[in-house]
Amino acid sequence: MSDEALFTDLYELTMLRAYLAGRMHAPAAFEFFVRRLPPRRAFLIAAGLAQALDYLEALRFDERELEYLARTVPLEPAHVEYLRTLRFTGDVDAVPEGTLVFPDEPLLRVVAPIPEAQLVETRLINILHFQTLLASKAARTVLAAPGKQLVDFGSRRAHGLEAGVLCARAAFIAGFAGTSNLLAGRRFGIPVYGTMAHSFVQAHDDELEAFRLFTRANPNTVLLLDTYDMERAVHGVVRLVREEGLAIRGVRIDSGDLGAHAHAVRRILDAAGLEQCSIFASGGLDEDELVRLAASDAPIDGFGVGTRLDTSADAPYLDCAYKLQEYGGRPRRKRSEGKATWPGQKQVFRKRAADGLLVEDVVTLVGDSQPGEPLLVPVMRGGRRLGAAEPLAMIRARAEAQIQSLPERLRMLETVPEPYPVRISERLHSLAAALDRAGPRGT
Amino acid sequence: MSDEALFTDLYELTMLRAYLAGRMHAPAAFEFFVRRLPPRRAFLIAAGLAQALDYLEALRFDERELEYLARTVPLEPAHVEYLRTLRFTGDVDAVPEGTLVFPDEPLLRVVAPIPEAQLVETRLINILHFQTLLASKAARTVLAAPGKQLVDFGSRRAHGLEAGVLCARAAFIAGFAGTSNLLAGRRFGIPVYGTMAHSFVQAHDDELEAFRLFTRANPNTVLLLDTYDMERAVHGVVRLVREEGLAIRGVRIDSGDLGAHAHAVRRILDAAGLEQCSIFASGGLDEDELVRLAASDAPIDGFGVGTRLDTSADAPYLDCAYKLQEYGGRPRRKRSEGKATWPGQKQVFRKRAADGLLVEDVVTLVGDSQPGEPLLVPVMRGGRRLGAAEPLAMIRARAEAQIQSLPERLRMLETVPEPYPVRISERLHSLAAALDRAGPRGT
Repeated sequence: MSDEALFTDLYELTMLRAYLAGRMHAPAAFEFFVRRLPPRRAFLIAAGLAQALDYLEALRFDERELEYLARTVPLEPAHVEYLRTLRFTGDVDAVPEGTLVFPDEPLLRVVAPIPEAQLVETRLINILHFQTLLASKAARTVLAAPGKQLVDFGSRRAHGLEAGVLCARAAFIAGFAGTSNLLAGRRFGIPVYGTMAHSFVQAHDDELEAFRLFTRANPNTVLLLDTYDMERAVHGVVRLVREEGLAIRGVRIDSGDLGAHAHAVRRILDAAGLEQCSIFASGGLDEDELVRLAASDAPIDGFGVGTRLDTSADAPYLDCAYKLQEYGGRPRRKRSEGKATWPGQKQVFRKRAADGLLVEDVVTLVGDSQPGEPLLVPVMRGGRRLGAAEPLAMIRARAEAQIQSLPERLRMLETVPEPYPVRISERLHSLAAALDRAGPRGT
Repeated sequence: MSDEALFTDLYELTMLRAYLAGRMHAPAAFEFFVRRLPPRRAFLIAAGLAQALDYLEALRFDERELEYLARTVPLEPAHVEYLRTLRFTGDVDAVPEGTLVFPDEPLLRVVAPIPEAQLVETRLINILHFQTLLASKAARTVLAAPGKQLVDFGSRRAHGLEAGVLCARAAFIAGFAGTSNLLAGRRFGIPVYGTMAHSFVQAHDDELEAFRLFTRANPNTVLLLDTYDMERAVHGVVRLVREEGLAIRGVRIDSGDLGAHAHAVRRILDAAGLEQCSIFASGGLDEDELVRLAASDAPIDGFGVGTRLDTSADAPYLDCAYKLQEYGGRPRRKRSEGKATWPGQKQVFRKRAADGLLVEDVVTLVGDSQPGEPLLVPVMRGGRRLGAAEPLAMIRARAEAQIQSLPERLRMLETVPEPYPVRISERLHSLAAALDRAGPRGT
């Protein structure tokens, strides 16, 4: 996306002025991680890496942007010249998309000359935060409705265009069948789904006539029942199928008590021999509502999940950060109250039981080998991607396998009494203590 | 923004197939409105109209998009031809940005041939919903901190690039001084603000040396105090100013008990004769936190408000809709449970007391004149804007004047016992009742 280079905070540029003034070009290691889980979350699904690498590969300022920066920051000619030729030349290691991640675990590490590594902070957080947030929310939704077809319906109330498109991607990674959003469908090859709106029915004097016209134009479609009166509408659907032979795949309910309506509609359809006609529901859904509907054995085959998914309504942000952990080869540690960081370039090792279930993660320094599988892998060197972007289907398969490896107690939708253990290695503890004693110091 | 045309739900296109099959090209009137206020909200600020009109004016599909649609929806050649030449040719009436709005009041009305008016639903809601949500959240934040300088710091955790940029715009409309986001600054001419990050301090072996280098590169800057130890840092700032004569405008606190730290920092600064050095605070702020800080008389001059603003964290969405109210000159009414609409093309009249304070709004049909000021005005005819886009400063001034016209009881940040009265006119009640008896009917 154009404009991405300028999507940065002013302070990244005021710091750039000072880095250049101080001739500070040594490599800096920044890591992106989540400090703590939002309420009721037991795990996160890493997502957004593909867009993060796209951004880093394409990073450059055009002349109009440089002119704006020169005037606004303001920048001297030497700064402008630096930015004119700036490309991202750094290395990136990251946890592959679709991987389960937990607090204190770096999802991504940038190692680059400090002015570059600093400049990209704002947009990198913006990209990784949103898709990780959304994939994690969508994974909960999938866990709440096993075996059901879930479709992202939330573009209209997503926070802007990019949020709508990337929510569709994150939800697909987490196991959604697809999205209603055509732009997401085209950009990522995600299956698109859709039925009809109330407005189509309202634009006709007669609901049955609307159904007839719509079905002829869209054979094997799904008809929306709740514009006026749900029971009358379903009887109309029965007539169209049985008396007129129209091909109708299913019906959608979008208001009221979805479970009760689904039971009533199912009875009418079955009594008319339309057992194959499926029921699709939408309207104010989220994982909690899906659990309630499952508990009432609501005969619903698929769900359109919208606003509360696309906005991650119960937890609309993650407490995450992109922090300097090393500069010029020396580990660094921030010690702010409640926001202290683990210093140095880090790796995460994941231990599994013989049955594949996760047992424990250990966060340690790069180079300190531990039992288990290392999570961060090299994805970019010298500003160039290592290999092509992963196919979305592969990321989705990874997420599914990862969720299957979650111990049962962590698949709950409520706060878990015993969170997944993330252990900080002894070497990392020692390094932090040593830095607190003798490392970069306060005034 | 490119790609906007394809940012639509699949069902808009399946309906388009049926509209074209049924030769339905009569004008449809759709209205965008909010059904009910989120918890703890007493008012909303309309925003996003400029982007909505930009979108409508620029609406067109390119060949690659048409190819995707033909294959995916799927579309026949006649449908593709229709879309190839499609431009938005309709009329738009809307409430000017920065205006207070309440439930059931249309913020925007589109009147256009039904395939056009339908197709734009998804993106129009997406645009108007987000900025109205954010301007309303930001207005609460401004009410919570009278006389303080507020800066939007939330781009990194906004839901994507567009959310970050448009949140900055919405916050500026609502009275924020500016944003940290350079892209928003350039696109909308919003003032940009920024200080420094912990990483800059951490990249130095000595905090004081970091402050010195940063201040020389950025005279009259704001220094960040909480990387290691707040009190030691502020004593360092005093030394730089008094002993080395560096020009420092202020300091920033970003963690811990902001109020307690501000009191301590203020005492040290004042004791050293640095009364002019201001204190800026950030970190987990929202309107509730600002109220608490004001109650403790925290000596803080300005605030960076981030994540909870940009995600509208306590209410991340509005219950809003874009609904068909008239087709072919005949009013229409949806009667779904809990989601019934008021039919027909509507106008809102706002009555004020002699002192200018708002008294009551009346929602009625276009043509039914009522006392007070009509809120919706013509903004687009035949797909062309009427006049240039309003300057942002004018919108901001309108919002300020509007908020000043709010009765005191509605300026509270809690749920108000007596919400602002929005009355549905007798003519509108009669029309709805008549339609329920004899209007477009169910099957």
